[in-house]
Amino acid sequence: MGFWAVVPAGGAGTRLWPLSRRDDPKFLHDLTGSGSSLLQQTRARLEPLAGDRVVVVTGAAHADAVRAQLPDAVAARVVAEPSPRDSMAAIGLAAALIERQDPDAVLGSFAADHVVADDAAFAECVRRAAAVAADGWLVTLGVRPTYAATGFGWIHLGEELAGHPGAHAVAQFVEKPDADRAAVYLAGGEHRWNAGMFVARPGVLLDLLADSDPGFAAELRAMAADPSLVGAAWPTLPKIAIDHAVAEPAADAGRVAVVEADFDWEDVGDFAALAGLLPATGPGPRVLGDAALVHAIDSDGVVVPAGGRPVAVVGVPGVVVVDTGDALLVTTVERAQDVKRLVAELGATRPDLL
Amino acid sequence: MGFWAVVPAGGAGTRLWPLSRRDDPKFLHDLTGSGSSLLQQTRARLEPLAGDRVVVVTGAAHADAVRAQLPDAVAARVVAEPSPRDSMAAIGLAAALIERQDPDAVLGSFAADHVVADDAAFAECVRRAAAVAADGWLVTLGVRPTYAATGFGWIHLGEELAGHPGAHAVAQFVEKPDADRAAVYLAGGEHRWNAGMFVARPGVLLDLLADSDPGFAAELRAMAADPSLVGAAWPTLPKIAIDHAVAEPAADAGRVAVVEADFDWEDVGDFAALAGLLPATGPGPRVLGDAALVHAIDSDGVVVPAGGRPVAVVGVPGVVVVDTGDALLVTTVERAQDVKRLVAELGATRPDLL
Repeated sequence: MGFWAVVPAGGAGTRLWPLSRRDDPKFLHDLTGSGSSLLQQTRARLEPLAGDRVVVVTGAAHADAVRAQLPDAVAARVVAEPSPRDSMAAIGLAAALIERQDPDAVLGSFAADHVVADDAAFAECVRRAAAVAADGWLVTLGVRPTYAATGFGWIHLGEELAGHPGAHAVAQFVEKPDADRAAVYLAGGEHRWNAGMFVARPGVLLDLLADSDPGFAAELRAMAADPSLVGAAWPTLPKIAIDHAVAEPAADAGRVAVVEADFDWEDVGDFAALAGLLPATGPGPRVLGDAALVHAIDSDGVVVPAGGRPVAVVGVPGVVVVDTGDALLVTTVERAQDVKRLVAELGATRPDLL
Repeated sequence: MGFWAVVPAGGAGTRLWPLSRRDDPKFLHDLTGSGSSLLQQTRARLEPLAGDRVVVVTGAAHADAVRAQLPDAVAARVVAEPSPRDSMAAIGLAAALIERQDPDAVLGSFAADHVVADDAAFAECVRRAAAVAADGWLVTLGVRPTYAATGFGWIHLGEELAGHPGAHAVAQFVEKPDADRAAVYLAGGEHRWNAGMFVARPGVLLDLLADSDPGFAAELRAMAADPSLVGAAWPTLPKIAIDHAVAEPAADAGRVAVVEADFDWEDVGDFAALAGLLPATGPGPRVLGDAALVHAIDSDGVVVPAGGRPVAVVGVPGVVVVDTGDALLVTTVERAQDVKRLVAELGATRPDLL
């Protein structure tokens, strides 16, 4: 069985403005101080599983930047979307391309901008998922929850699968819960976080899509057969997430399995999450970048001196300072979610800054 | 009687870093959004009293910048100190120069970096002080306190002067008090703030200095008579504030009067003070500079977008953001005093930033 990875590289990461921009999205950035971008880390994590069989799907505007960050063999497989059509179109086209090239393959889809702490545990988990997927299941990775998260969807575990110890049927995908509900899920032990990671045979994925939208699946397969169709057909594709297009209806039909993911996973959604990923070097703020530029008194939080200028912080616990060459953000870890609101306002008044 | 103004323009304004720098001190800046620097505002405030009879004393490093901000007739009188020797040397040399040129004059000394809200009330107060000074008193302006300030010295009022209703002898100059003591002074009504503004005949001032340090006074008069002596003699002068050299001993000798100053006065010592001087234009932070650059959600305080870049603030009440071309400060109004501590640390590690 050949394992292929699909890496959707999209999403502006609006809660990471001004570090992440429309024209320079977060997956192109090193957000963990590792020296590699999130995209490069994702590729490296997948290499033991997929070698060069990695299909990155990204917006046409970012295709060159994405290729520049990848080894040639992977760069050659980058698929440029003419326009954003959400994850079903992106992953579906990649699945259709893989189906033609390697019909017996199993593919796994992993976002370009997530962080996983333990690559070996990740690979082991994906191998288990691939074994289940080889039997015709759509498999999702269910991250063991560590707190009552309201920012993710959750997965309700069903029966354990015969022949796949530790894998369960998915009873239901649950939308982002409120805090009370999330606490119940956490305490109950029968729910996992939905990290948006799917593993399936490409034909299984497309056939499941065909069950709910036969025309959509047919279009994707036609484009894979004749890429010259993409330009005209792409803008007509439904704009829908793979969760709604395939995973939820397939779960209702008893076709989705979940494999437990026992590794730390982070979607780096905002600066609070980013702060959590950076190593602490002392009592002061975490620093993404050159720590010698940061001068702090009685402050923690996170400072990103990406503008190359010295940043001094005096007496602001939990502060978030993001200094780029052309824009500056000051907020707190506590209010980091609200950067989304700021970006919405800037979209109306200063779209040039996004 | 000719009235002369002496304007000591010194002091780095360390609690206003990075706006105020060693090489670009606060008196050269427009800190109130008025369109004029503090030095220019000081000169304009003194014009109705002194015309062009204004002697600005500043460090040699700043003399050109100071002259460039002044009309030619005032620029021509700028005195450049070879090195900083504190306020007695600076004001004393100006007094000695004025004494030679206009022996019957009265002079008033007013720092270049203070802000006064009501120029007419200021002029009226200085005229009253000058009338007292003409009778041979060293006169200080006592600002009516509006809160229990611990950041200034206070003046304890003595008896009312015969022939000068409203003017009092100074019973004592009091060092910066602690909060309890300041509250007592405020409640008692017999204390005023010492704003460091002195009015006297130049000969009276120098003779009072001669009472405590005859050599110092003689040196100053010798330099005024022969400016070629300044280079050699200046570095040998005592480094002492006028308060200690003259005002305090003269008060003990019953030679100092105080005239009530009934105008709002601010020494713009830190960013909290600066925030108080800027007009509020809405619920967000006060802005020194281009308000269109500031995007704030749930924040007040003060933002200085002096770097020309957009500054976004999300959910940080009382925040202070000072963005300059080459350094960035983030603190709060509450902690604004501690910028001094930061500057002390930078002095050890990054003196190039000061």
